[in-house]
Amino acid sequence: MPVGTAGTVKAVSQDILEDLGAQIILGNTYHLYLRPGHELVRKLGGLHKFMSWERALLTDSGGFQVFSLSELRKVKEEGVSFRSHLDGTSHLFTPERSMEIQIALGADIVMAFDECTEHPAERERARTSMEMTLRWAKRSKDYFEAHKHECPWTDREIGKSGDRVIGKTEESVPAQPGAAAVHDSITKLTAPALFGIVQGGMYADLRRESAERTVEMDFPGYAIGGLSVGESRAKTMDMIAAVLEILPKDKPRYVMGVGYPEEIVQYAAMGVDMMDCVLPTRAARHGLLFTSEGRINIKNARYAQDQRPADPKCACRVCARYTRAYLRHLFVSAEPLAGVLNTVHNLAFYLDTMRSVRHAITLGDLSGILSGGVS
Amino acid sequence: MPVGTAGTVKAVSQDILEDLGAQIILGNTYHLYLRPGHELVRKLGGLHKFMSWERALLTDSGGFQVFSLSELRKVKEEGVSFRSHLDGTSHLFTPERSMEIQIALGADIVMAFDECTEHPAERERARTSMEMTLRWAKRSKDYFEAHKHECPWTDREIGKSGDRVIGKTEESVPAQPGAAAVHDSITKLTAPALFGIVQGGMYADLRRESAERTVEMDFPGYAIGGLSVGESRAKTMDMIAAVLEILPKDKPRYVMGVGYPEEIVQYAAMGVDMMDCVLPTRAARHGLLFTSEGRINIKNARYAQDQRPADPKCACRVCARYTRAYLRHLFVSAEPLAGVLNTVHNLAFYLDTMRSVRHAITLGDLSGILSGGVS
Repeated sequence: MPVGTAGTVKAVSQDILEDLGAQIILGNTYHLYLRPGHELVRKLGGLHKFMSWERALLTDSGGFQVFSLSELRKVKEEGVSFRSHLDGTSHLFTPERSMEIQIALGADIVMAFDECTEHPAERERARTSMEMTLRWAKRSKDYFEAHKHECPWTDREIGKSGDRVIGKTEESVPAQPGAAAVHDSITKLTAPALFGIVQGGMYADLRRESAERTVEMDFPGYAIGGLSVGESRAKTMDMIAAVLEILPKDKPRYVMGVGYPEEIVQYAAMGVDMMDCVLPTRAARHGLLFTSEGRINIKNARYAQDQRPADPKCACRVCARYTRAYLRHLFVSAEPLAGVLNTVHNLAFYLDTMRSVRHAITLGDLSGILSGGVS
Repeated sequence: MPVGTAGTVKAVSQDILEDLGAQIILGNTYHLYLRPGHELVRKLGGLHKFMSWERALLTDSGGFQVFSLSELRKVKEEGVSFRSHLDGTSHLFTPERSMEIQIALGADIVMAFDECTEHPAERERARTSMEMTLRWAKRSKDYFEAHKHECPWTDREIGKSGDRVIGKTEESVPAQPGAAAVHDSITKLTAPALFGIVQGGMYADLRRESAERTVEMDFPGYAIGGLSVGESRAKTMDMIAAVLEILPKDKPRYVMGVGYPEEIVQYAAMGVDMMDCVLPTRAARHGLLFTSEGRINIKNARYAQDQRPADPKCACRVCARYTRAYLRHLFVSAEPLAGVLNTVHNLAFYLDTMRSVRHAITLGDLSGILSGGVS
């Protein structure tokens, strides 16, 4: 899932995201709550309508951004109080408040409010944090079930032509031969879906316990949070593997905030269905391009006269038209088109990577992809 | 002509410019000379190839940017010495050097090297400056005629499939019912064209003399420079009117660096064939949108919940998809997509305005357009 923090995947217009085959994008609750505000978005028909995006939207719970961006945060049983990084005003996120905001935004997939345990964390601290995330999951679910039909598109669509449908037309979503069953299973919605989040720090037994107790609450999908926070990649994989043993295979399984192209292929091969990461978009704005030949830093002088496309094996609109020399010129000249073109290419590379993974899954053979066939 | 300063119309990709129906864009010699450098551009096949733009390109002489951007400039008979605004390095632009650079860039239309007389200027100063521009025009022409076939696309195309052709296909350039004859007259090129530039400050008689003596040198097109430098709009019109009496009607007549939508309609009605201005693109990046109902500042709080498109009468891809509320949110959030979408709309408005002008010319009736039918 490309990340569209404030109702926009930075620098890329929605028609290009559609062309790239993005089936779902992520919005950040923290950012949208602060600006333009969830009540405004609800009033204007929800985030789908506000940003003109008919395909699926997932919003995070807001918890992670509060931890990483806001000032003077205080975590209590009730929730998290914090000051806005924009203007210093005071706010309180609780599980109920997070649900209220996400429902107002009109996401198709809403995430339970969790505490992203800091890293490193002692075992007892990780357990305490995990226990609170479980209590918050229960409170999230209770509020969500009571209010999910207040979602703006539920109102709107039911009043008009029926239920909201994801990926309803062959025209709007290019056929994906290997599209995960996950996608088909949520093609018709009468209300948003709430996913639970597994925490537990870097302790496999806590992770398993968190997964078991979250599954007991019976969510339509499960996320693994609190990873990619500074631990080794081997540790990330261990935690994912431990949790995947518990999470039901017939429900979407989502690892939050990962990762490099080779990582997402590996996790998909392990059984992960969904991932999100700012890496392709953020790296693009810093001139880092992902290619079939590895990463390249486009500002490097070696590309000044390089007439090849960013990635000779890529068929995206950027690689079809522009040279590395031109992309380098745009970047070193701080031209706004640099961010646009670099982001479009990186998203194409990521989405192509996942298309290859889905195709390999259909064929029942991921060996070629895992040995580096894609990235 | 949209302005593409450094080989890019800021924030807009070339495929969108094509969709908008831009037939010709302008590149700035001063910027391209400093970065990436004209020799690099020549080596990579010229600016057309470098930026992947098959339609027409015009480059300015570099003189105006030296006056407005560089430091420590000194004007002598030989030319202008200056320091780069990027790194302080010393450079010298002469008429010959300007031609060499523009030929290396491979522009379809090359501009003679002129001195943009400062405003206000005493009569004697304006005459002295005008006389030097005339001597520089002669030197520009002499160098240009001797070297024009060194243009990269001349080499390339002649070596391959023949002459460079502007607007050769109906597919690549949407049919313009009212397209100026000017366009047809330069549809097949074997070398670039050099335009002369009329100066003379704000003195009608000097302007006329400059025009007469420039026309005597016999250029395939003529520009009126040194306007829109702080004088009243009435004065601008007086100067244009004086010069248009002299310039041949069967050659392109180009007013440099103008203007607001209502201005360009007025000048076109007076007989001007070409104009360029950074206004639509620069204003867009500052949140100023041109619409059929006047200018709007999209950051204004009144648009926070405005679900109308930027311009309800506009059919551009931005107005077809996004609301003012969304555009305002992008702008106040400093999202890069704000610059992209605002620029696309403003360019659409300008290009639509000129399409309406051409249509009115075909019908032989500009009265509706001059009374505000467009802007």
